[in-house]
Amino acid sequence: MDLLFDDTYYMKKALQEAEMAYEKGEVPIGAIVVIHDRIIARAHNLTEQLNDVTAHAEMQAITAAANFLGGKYLQDCTMYITLEPCQMCAGALYWSQISKIVYAAGDSQRGYKAMGTKLHPKTKILGGVLEKEASDLLKRFFVERRNLN
Amino acid sequence: MDLLFDDTYYMKKALQEAEMAYEKGEVPIGAIVVIHDRIIARAHNLTEQLNDVTAHAEMQAITAAANFLGGKYLQDCTMYITLEPCQMCAGALYWSQISKIVYAAGDSQRGYKAMGTKLHPKTKILGGVLEKEASDLLKRFFVERRNLN
Repeated sequence: MDLLFDDTYYMKKALQEAEMAYEKGEVPIGAIVVIHDRIIARAHNLTEQLNDVTAHAEMQAITAAANFLGGKYLQDCTMYITLEPCQMCAGALYWSQISKIVYAAGDSQRGYKAMGTKLHPKTKILGGVLEKEASDLLKRFFVERRNLN
Repeated sequence: MDLLFDDTYYMKKALQEAEMAYEKGEVPIGAIVVIHDRIIARAHNLTEQLNDVTAHAEMQAITAAANFLGGKYLQDCTMYITLEPCQMCAGALYWSQISKIVYAAGDSQRGYKAMGTKLHPKTKILGGVLEKEASDLLKRFFVERRNLN
């Protein structure tokens, strides 16, 4: 049995990051980076708090993971993200040469697939892990925000 | 006569940033952000020094300009860049809703056009301003680097 450290386990950690974003009034998206069953970066969206469109969870997680590793390439790393990456984040992941990306909910409007962004040929990608949990959190955020306005 | 603060004037400022990158052993690319004839952000590529694939000149310039403006959208701003933006930077510029992008040299391999990245519908883009100066600097960098190895 090797169930503990599977994709679902790590996606739950990314969802915890998304919940931290939610509590700060940020669009609730979280990301973590794992290498050899060890979490080396955790981040959540901070675009509102930092007033910065580049402060997506994935961008911060790439910077933090590279800092931890002491090198800018994320070979042997997997990023878990609660939402399919956008053009910017997929473009950053391209430069990082990351080995694997696992995301929860798809984004048919602004996701890298709809936008036609290219991933690095070395990168594998898998979607749909804890999709419902991630998309429910996003829906709850946008419903609440609509009710506040 | 209104020649002083034209695209060539500002691109020279971006080229000065690229030269600063060159002196640090970074791929020589610079970017500045201008609003109402005022430079509000200057940056150059720092991917090697920071060990971070996200530290492109454009990304830093977006963050700096938003910080200066106190808001994350770069409406009424123009970014001058010495090289056509990549997927990541074009994706970040998309989120910023910047009004105009002017670049010098094209990038037929990794530029946003070859990669099919979408810009924001509000953004105008113009290439080829001081193209030769920017591409000569890049060529000189790569020739020197080859000779060092």
